[in-house]
Amino acid sequence: MMENIPMIAAGAGLVGLVIAFVLYQQVNKVKIDNEVVADITDEIQKGAMAFLFAEYKVLSIFVVVVGAVLAWLNDVDTAIAFFAGAIASVLAGFSGMRAATSANGRTAMAAKNEGRAGALAVSYNGGAVMGLSVGGLGLLGISIIAFWLSAGETATDGSMNPVSAAAGFGMGASSIALFARVGGGIYTKAADVGADLVGKVEAGIPEDDPRNPGVIADNVGDNVGDVAGMGADIFESFVGSIIAAMIIANDFEVGTAGDYVLLPILLGFIGYTASIIGVFSMSFLKNGKDPAAALRNTTFIAAALFWAGGYLAIQQGLINVEYGIMHSVVLGSIIGILIGLVTEYYTGIEPVFGIKPKAIPHIGEMSKTGPATNAIAGLSVGMMSTFIPVVLISLGILGANEFGGEKYGLYCIAMAAMGMLGTVGVTMTVDAYGPVADNAGGIAEMSGLGEDVRAITDELDSIGNTTAAVGKGFAIGSAALTALALFAAYTAAIGADKLNLELTEPIVVIGLLIGGGLPFVVAAMTMTSVGKAAGDMVVEIRRQFKEIPGLLEGKEGVKPDSQTCVDISTKAALREMVGPGVVAIVAPVIVGYTLGFNALGGLLAGSLVTGVLMALFMANAGGAWDNAKKAIEQGHIDGAKKGDEAHDAAIIGDTVGDPFKDTSGPSLNILIKLMSIVAVVMAGTGKLSEKGLL
Amino acid sequence: MMENIPMIAAGAGLVGLVIAFVLYQQVNKVKIDNEVVADITDEIQKGAMAFLFAEYKVLSIFVVVVGAVLAWLNDVDTAIAFFAGAIASVLAGFSGMRAATSANGRTAMAAKNEGRAGALAVSYNGGAVMGLSVGGLGLLGISIIAFWLSAGETATDGSMNPVSAAAGFGMGASSIALFARVGGGIYTKAADVGADLVGKVEAGIPEDDPRNPGVIADNVGDNVGDVAGMGADIFESFVGSIIAAMIIANDFEVGTAGDYVLLPILLGFIGYTASIIGVFSMSFLKNGKDPAAALRNTTFIAAALFWAGGYLAIQQGLINVEYGIMHSVVLGSIIGILIGLVTEYYTGIEPVFGIKPKAIPHIGEMSKTGPATNAIAGLSVGMMSTFIPVVLISLGILGANEFGGEKYGLYCIAMAAMGMLGTVGVTMTVDAYGPVADNAGGIAEMSGLGEDVRAITDELDSIGNTTAAVGKGFAIGSAALTALALFAAYTAAIGADKLNLELTEPIVVIGLLIGGGLPFVVAAMTMTSVGKAAGDMVVEIRRQFKEIPGLLEGKEGVKPDSQTCVDISTKAALREMVGPGVVAIVAPVIVGYTLGFNALGGLLAGSLVTGVLMALFMANAGGAWDNAKKAIEQGHIDGAKKGDEAHDAAIIGDTVGDPFKDTSGPSLNILIKLMSIVAVVMAGTGKLSEKGLL
Repeated sequence: MMENIPMIAAGAGLVGLVIAFVLYQQVNKVKIDNEVVADITDEIQKGAMAFLFAEYKVLSIFVVVVGAVLAWLNDVDTAIAFFAGAIASVLAGFSGMRAATSANGRTAMAAKNEGRAGALAVSYNGGAVMGLSVGGLGLLGISIIAFWLSAGETATDGSMNPVSAAAGFGMGASSIALFARVGGGIYTKAADVGADLVGKVEAGIPEDDPRNPGVIADNVGDNVGDVAGMGADIFESFVGSIIAAMIIANDFEVGTAGDYVLLPILLGFIGYTASIIGVFSMSFLKNGKDPAAALRNTTFIAAALFWAGGYLAIQQGLINVEYGIMHSVVLGSIIGILIGLVTEYYTGIEPVFGIKPKAIPHIGEMSKTGPATNAIAGLSVGMMSTFIPVVLISLGILGANEFGGEKYGLYCIAMAAMGMLGTVGVTMTVDAYGPVADNAGGIAEMSGLGEDVRAITDELDSIGNTTAAVGKGFAIGSAALTALALFAAYTAAIGADKLNLELTEPIVVIGLLIGGGLPFVVAAMTMTSVGKAAGDMVVEIRRQFKEIPGLLEGKEGVKPDSQTCVDISTKAALREMVGPGVVAIVAPVIVGYTLGFNALGGLLAGSLVTGVLMALFMANAGGAWDNAKKAIEQGHIDGAKKGDEAHDAAIIGDTVGDPFKDTSGPSLNILIKLMSIVAVVMAGTGKLSEKGLL
Repeated sequence: MMENIPMIAAGAGLVGLVIAFVLYQQVNKVKIDNEVVADITDEIQKGAMAFLFAEYKVLSIFVVVVGAVLAWLNDVDTAIAFFAGAIASVLAGFSGMRAATSANGRTAMAAKNEGRAGALAVSYNGGAVMGLSVGGLGLLGISIIAFWLSAGETATDGSMNPVSAAAGFGMGASSIALFARVGGGIYTKAADVGADLVGKVEAGIPEDDPRNPGVIADNVGDNVGDVAGMGADIFESFVGSIIAAMIIANDFEVGTAGDYVLLPILLGFIGYTASIIGVFSMSFLKNGKDPAAALRNTTFIAAALFWAGGYLAIQQGLINVEYGIMHSVVLGSIIGILIGLVTEYYTGIEPVFGIKPKAIPHIGEMSKTGPATNAIAGLSVGMMSTFIPVVLISLGILGANEFGGEKYGLYCIAMAAMGMLGTVGVTMTVDAYGPVADNAGGIAEMSGLGEDVRAITDELDSIGNTTAAVGKGFAIGSAALTALALFAAYTAAIGADKLNLELTEPIVVIGLLIGGGLPFVVAAMTMTSVGKAAGDMVVEIRRQFKEIPGLLEGKEGVKPDSQTCVDISTKAALREMVGPGVVAIVAPVIVGYTLGFNALGGLLAGSLVTGVLMALFMANAGGAWDNAKKAIEQGHIDGAKKGDEAHDAAIIGDTVGDPFKDTSGPSLNILIKLMSIVAVVMAGTGKLSEKGLL
């Protein structure tokens, strides 16, 4: 059985991809019988495609250059694996974006023609195309890698360097993910911030108003950022957690290593199969009373099957590993869910398990005294919200390490990350469902489909926001654990006997400080980019409102020049995504070669700590600002209401939070893993020395 | 000679305190021949004294409780040393505050009656009272500790625990410093933010307008926060760097240890003497053309004498230590100056060594598109500004470690911190001069002393802002190096053979993550406090403008109710300062006793990394926002000017920056050292175990 695991997993991946394609066809069958909706859908799809192709053109240069360097420094296998990882990541992002742009308008139409259940099905299936693609491509890619790594035997015959190849695949996935997240994040937020600032704040017209020249760019951005960017991001996480476990296991004694190398693939297979069942269960669940419960239940079904399947596989001897390993998988899932609940507590309006959130009322209250106190409140909520998740992550590390004992402690930490990502097929579905429902609402608004339709899409959207919280918990928790596992993989690749990572060594502290600084640098770069691009957008939208007669008044037949705004976002995203990506790849190289491998180890640990904290801070501050604004709009804050000064202040806070939660924050999750995997690849060259150039 | 060093140093400290007292008398001799100035000076002094006494009352409870715990867990010596450190810190803050509140109004009067040179002399002397008090009290206290530690011999006779006693003194100084910084910071920023938001933004009246009920509280706050808080802060730094070096040296071989234990005291003595000479050189320099150059030159004279004196003392055999140690002292000074210049580059308007700053123009530009883009720009400038300083600190660690070699590497890192703090007598003078000049301007405005006076105080104030940048560089750089040295002291106290601080140990990573999170928690707590208190202040000031007839119109004889605003700030500061202080002291205790001494080591390293980064981020973002607003006011930003929308946006950014730069940021510098020193004290009990309660 054991040696067949990669083949079975690859087969499951292929089947899942076919299912994804069928779902895509089904989504496309929903008819769009409204000309405006058809036009807008078309415009958004074209804009998104144009951006993605332009982005891929830039990235292909990067991939070729880095691939050549890898072939030269490591070996051709690593370079090929790198290409494969990059291409798989591109496909994951692309397929999701195709599905989402098709589903957006069709969800709106289904809401009009078939009511809530129909709209829920279309948007869910749109998300499922992405979820199943990400999981399927991941399984397929990893299985190919596993042929190299199979059973750990090749590791010793010297014919190739399987660790380096696996890391190469991960590096391909991670680097594309970082560019996609940063590029997509800058695109969407430049458009969003620009459109909101002039539209909502200055001109006083509603969100998604068709008079606003930035609205199409904003909608395109939602797809290239929140969907394609997120797809590449989750693909990277999924692949990264599996690879980290495999590389650690590859270092175990010959004989036992094989099973441990293959376990993450087996679990990936089980989780993916469970996810497919979870996705299909929606057909039965969608007609229930509570769509939120339906969404939640699809993930619960998948998780339960995943856990049961994992325990069963080990118990039945399908694979020869310690039974306790599965406890760390379950622990990982639980920690992920808890982090999600904490996120909900700090960023949500509704009580979490009966505990009334205080953060949003606090920010709402502070909005009454203006944008400055709103900003101070949002920033402090974001900072405070980092602590419990960090403690939870620590408990996860502690528990997994205990379950693993002396021998398998670090391996179990990687397996805890797998616990968060094993059912990625369905969790990603729910994640991707959110932006689809959101954009459906935007399209309904722009094409005047009426109050009833908007009410349905609004309900679906607000559910998406809550489910997204759990998704974020999984994303951040798994990033921390995966980065830690990759760090362990790095130390294994260098050789524990050679390394000296004592915190009392000044060179380790130096690495720690520099590594700690890098997330601040990348956060700053991405925020500056959004700020600049949004500034350009503001100038352009203001110009159009001033120079195009009748636009602001809504005169019949007067249309804004959306294309110019799309161009501004596209150019800014392509120009600005390069810097952060280069920093992430070059920084470990420079530190590794000048200060040596101990400093590089310190760098990874430092970036892990501040990266996780800054990612939590920025994501939660952004989420809290967003919901504080909504809380005012929905009348949750006494003495404040839509259109008053407190609301204006809250809009400003929300705008500051936009790049926090959708550009900089998510980039940091990828950054820390990308740097770790670059380090693992470098370790694979055997050319790193203790002292570097010192 | 050697055994007399503590005595000589104590003598110098006493002489310096006498000089400080004479300078204080001189400042008081300047006549206040304007009734309004006299009234305001009186009101500010009373308010500041009232607050400080209320604060000390709260702190005395804390000091007694913690002292009792120390007497019980460690020994009575540690408790006594803790009391001494706390009392010395209180005296340092108090004396500075007395001098500053006297000098504020008198500087304004001197500007009117004697012109610029006179005003410069009074404000400089006001600062010098503080500088010499801080240095003198530090030398005196440390010298007493040195009798215990003398020559390292007592360390082995078992009669007492000198490490624990030295750490106790440091802990007293650090804990008072944290409370003073946080309390003073909340006081001043609640008043400042509240007064600005209603006064400048809503009512459109100028800063420091006597109609504004919050102006007196704001002025009181400047003294209790920027002066008394800063005094306690710098005192803590000075003492901390000396103690760290002494504790490390105490672990050297018996026989050589003594000289290394005494070297920091000798250098403290030399630096203090050099500082006194530097302060006196102002009498000759003040009549020169360029007051900025005069200020700078007083510090240069002191630094040159300090370096020369240090080299000479070693070369002449006054103390028997490696000559190379002095290189690290000089390196530390240079690194401190470079960090200061980088700070100036990121937060200043004027070119730094011919390099034109880009950050302020960027924020200014972004202000044109509103407060949201201004906030995004300020935050990203702050984040970006962390990197070069972190690299410089790393270079300092690397260089000092090289100068020290195998044996004295960590010691030399502590000595590099001494390089930044040795001439604290004069650098603190220049630091304290800034707020005095600033407040003189405020008093001149409130009492209508006229344009000419205001022009002089404005010039002196703007010089203060630049010199403050270098002071900040020293504060942050020395905090990082001192915390690292205290970390080394902690490892020495536990015993390097027992500790396992490898980054591959999960428990160390857990400590790293939790420690990394604490600066975020403390930053969040302090910002929330400022936000809340400022919110209360806004409500009160709005009420007064609405309910007191004729106040806003400036009707003759109508006065605001300043006392209520003073009360709001006082109560908020006292209530809110407790939390962060408790976190700082309790967190290492909990982690140490539950997770063991390896996790505690990780905690210290984690808090060091994020604490330094967050302190840099917050201080520089705040400084940049402040100066971006000033740049618009002074016409440096094309297309923006005082009173337009860009300026309004910049004021909002400046307000967000207020708690960043004056409350949360500086608190973090103290936090990381306080936690380290608590850990050293805990290590001294010998009760920490490897596993804790696990």
